[in-house]
Amino acid sequence: MSSRLHVRSISGEKLEATLPALQAIVTPARVSATQADRALHARDQSSHPDHLPDLVVWPQTTAEVSALLRYANEARLPVTAWGAGSSLEGNPIPVYGGIVLNFQQMNQILKIHDTDFQVTVQPGVLYKDMNQVLAQYGLFFAPDPGANASIGGMVANNAAGIRTVKYGATRDNVLALEVVLANGEIMRTGSRSVKQSAGYDLTHLLVGSEGTLGIVTEATLKLAPLPEHFSAVIATFATVEAAAEVVFNIMGAGLEPTALELLNTTAITILNTAEGIELAVGPSLFMEFGGASEVSLTEELSMVEAICRDYGCQHYRAGVGREARNQLWHARHRFFETTLRYYPGQAYLLTDVAVPISQFPILVASANEIMTELECKGTIIGHAGDGNLHTAIFFPPADNEARARAGRVNDHLVERALALGGTCTGEHGVGLGKQKYMLAEHGPVALNVMRQLKATLDPNGILNPGKVIALNVER
Amino acid sequence: MSSRLHVRSISGEKLEATLPALQAIVTPARVSATQADRALHARDQSSHPDHLPDLVVWPQTTAEVSALLRYANEARLPVTAWGAGSSLEGNPIPVYGGIVLNFQQMNQILKIHDTDFQVTVQPGVLYKDMNQVLAQYGLFFAPDPGANASIGGMVANNAAGIRTVKYGATRDNVLALEVVLANGEIMRTGSRSVKQSAGYDLTHLLVGSEGTLGIVTEATLKLAPLPEHFSAVIATFATVEAAAEVVFNIMGAGLEPTALELLNTTAITILNTAEGIELAVGPSLFMEFGGASEVSLTEELSMVEAICRDYGCQHYRAGVGREARNQLWHARHRFFETTLRYYPGQAYLLTDVAVPISQFPILVASANEIMTELECKGTIIGHAGDGNLHTAIFFPPADNEARARAGRVNDHLVERALALGGTCTGEHGVGLGKQKYMLAEHGPVALNVMRQLKATLDPNGILNPGKVIALNVER
Repeated sequence: MSSRLHVRSISGEKLEATLPALQAIVTPARVSATQADRALHARDQSSHPDHLPDLVVWPQTTAEVSALLRYANEARLPVTAWGAGSSLEGNPIPVYGGIVLNFQQMNQILKIHDTDFQVTVQPGVLYKDMNQVLAQYGLFFAPDPGANASIGGMVANNAAGIRTVKYGATRDNVLALEVVLANGEIMRTGSRSVKQSAGYDLTHLLVGSEGTLGIVTEATLKLAPLPEHFSAVIATFATVEAAAEVVFNIMGAGLEPTALELLNTTAITILNTAEGIELAVGPSLFMEFGGASEVSLTEELSMVEAICRDYGCQHYRAGVGREARNQLWHARHRFFETTLRYYPGQAYLLTDVAVPISQFPILVASANEIMTELECKGTIIGHAGDGNLHTAIFFPPADNEARARAGRVNDHLVERALALGGTCTGEHGVGLGKQKYMLAEHGPVALNVMRQLKATLDPNGILNPGKVIALNVER
Repeated sequence: MSSRLHVRSISGEKLEATLPALQAIVTPARVSATQADRALHARDQSSHPDHLPDLVVWPQTTAEVSALLRYANEARLPVTAWGAGSSLEGNPIPVYGGIVLNFQQMNQILKIHDTDFQVTVQPGVLYKDMNQVLAQYGLFFAPDPGANASIGGMVANNAAGIRTVKYGATRDNVLALEVVLANGEIMRTGSRSVKQSAGYDLTHLLVGSEGTLGIVTEATLKLAPLPEHFSAVIATFATVEAAAEVVFNIMGAGLEPTALELLNTTAITILNTAEGIELAVGPSLFMEFGGASEVSLTEELSMVEAICRDYGCQHYRAGVGREARNQLWHARHRFFETTLRYYPGQAYLLTDVAVPISQFPILVASANEIMTELECKGTIIGHAGDGNLHTAIFFPPADNEARARAGRVNDHLVERALALGGTCTGEHGVGLGKQKYMLAEHGPVALNVMRQLKATLDPNGILNPGKVIALNVER
């Protein structure tokens, strides 16, 4: 039942037939077999090895996507959807070659339902571009992956980020989808009603399936009103454990931060290399609170400060104004790039475990310990309010031994996260890198059910083959 | 592929073999074939006709449920899970007879993860009983169906209620499940991490599947901290449209009511027959706001009042204290029973459509119009913040013509809701009554995918046969 049995890269002879067939569907101008175009769709932002697709196609309509998939399904050709290429676990790398569908020409905001706080978009629209338009309506799509990801990619990977602590991940903010199935059929799931109990939840089955069950061609998203009043807080602590204790207490008080980020000392040191940033060096929490009024916000902040003081906060800076706040989050968003500059020429491995928040201090301590023991250098940062921890481990590209040690950090962290009731991936998805942990996380029965669902919806295994559940086969 | 092909009520001869087999699995004391026990598991709170199961079994462990399903699957016997029997669309009526599994002896709170705001429970625990225990930890499970439903039933039906406007439906508050599949295999889905991106979302596929894809034997739920400060508001308007306009404006201001209910004049009149309730008669909003502090709450309420006044609110009563607030919600929760007393000896039909909130005034106006035109009497109430509208239509039990008119109201309301971008069921589930609308709501492709998923997970069709997608077959 493995997808390996069904699909493979397009051979030279087959390519000669495929190219004109695809050109007939989308016009010749929107199919490319050039090395340059293929190379642009061979890797994401992860450290996974690249792999060239055979062809790149830029569809403009759902009908084209339908026709393309019908053709590919009959010809048993791999099809991988491509958004912005900003994913972090190899999710869109076309490891079996075949066709990459680049959605940048399906990037329209189709309808802003402003009084319903909803928007209907095509998958190629970019997150930040969309939010810029929505800001004119006082609205925004809250899941914030940092990168200017495409909405299609965010839906496929169930992306999340610094706003998830209050607003949930992408999964929690998708109401309805239009999806093209492997056989080319066009399916609509969900509705614009925020409450839905009409049968099986196909919408949420598709969200996070990384393009392996169907390809999203339209999404209706929940939006949130932009908070009129907000304030950032930066608090620095003696230990990361103290910072994590503060996290519980803030959440338990019924306070609702719109962001609650933890950064270790190394991460703060790196952030301080960015222009205009001068933070007290030590384990820190970046927090943001938004409120309907200045008064309620001020009241909230005084409670936050009291909690921070209780846990021996060493530096506390609250009431950060709009400009300083924007600068801070801009720096946080650019943290990945800043880190890459801080370790010039180094290769890296990113990890993405998540645990119940009560276990977060233990996880952070473990990460420190594991990285020290395996002599790995890098950062520890986390979406603390969600219990989501990232480490970035840097090493010389040619140093295979160091690369192997980084891999062992990942293994140990995942093992630890699972033992603590958590997951191998909080927001980056399974892609290529997390498949080896799926059996340990889900057990054979759930994994087998996932495989059965894949076989049901994509019997020929043409959709993003090699991802999510290609390994760990138990039948 | 219809489940009709595979399962049927247990014939006399087969019953003689089945009874001792089930007794061997769960002890003889926990299997019953008495008329009295069967009659107690033949109907829910809906108006759908009752149907007796052949046998009732009270499992005590997951291992027993597994053994029972393995047996039933091999023998092709229908199995329907039973919680509290409080559902409203015929969801647990064993229309093919067979075995009902009553979960009242699997009603333990297994673990309260208080610092994570989570609880792990067995399916038979009752909602209100569980929340009474959780209150000692300052926590509660927010979806509030009114009735003292079982958690298993709430998960199966994706139950919601008056708290959904702020906290979401059951689906939004389930992190992990233990599920016994049709073949007896025990599957674990999800994890205790609030962020999860590790493969297909089996948890949310199971939630709302009404026991047709698997039977839940354990659930880990998200909890919310009990708001320390809250206040109820009652506002009465000249028209239901004005009230609905207020709903948008409250939501759009970033205010976050913990409840936002609309009741028409008839509903208010009925509520006033309850002891201690004296409301101004007219279309009204019942609202509740909870805050982290008294100050922020006061500020919020002043914004609410301003919005209500802008839309010509005729009576406004805010800052309702804890006792009066409890009395109000108690009355709201007992509204269904109060209504039954108000129409003594009458039969009834309940509707449950939901639309995007911008369309809610139109839907309410349509409901009024349709009920007047078809000369149906009853109430119109709604979880307005969710766009969810219920009507209850009363008629003499023997009056088949009136019953048919009530059915036509349901048809028209669903048709209207779908045209407005909504759904045929916001929170009661599909059960028996909503299957006829599934094709119109989802279209043939999605409906066929639902059927394929059912066939994949329950190939013999033993799980709650005749529900959700038994009709509208398109293959």
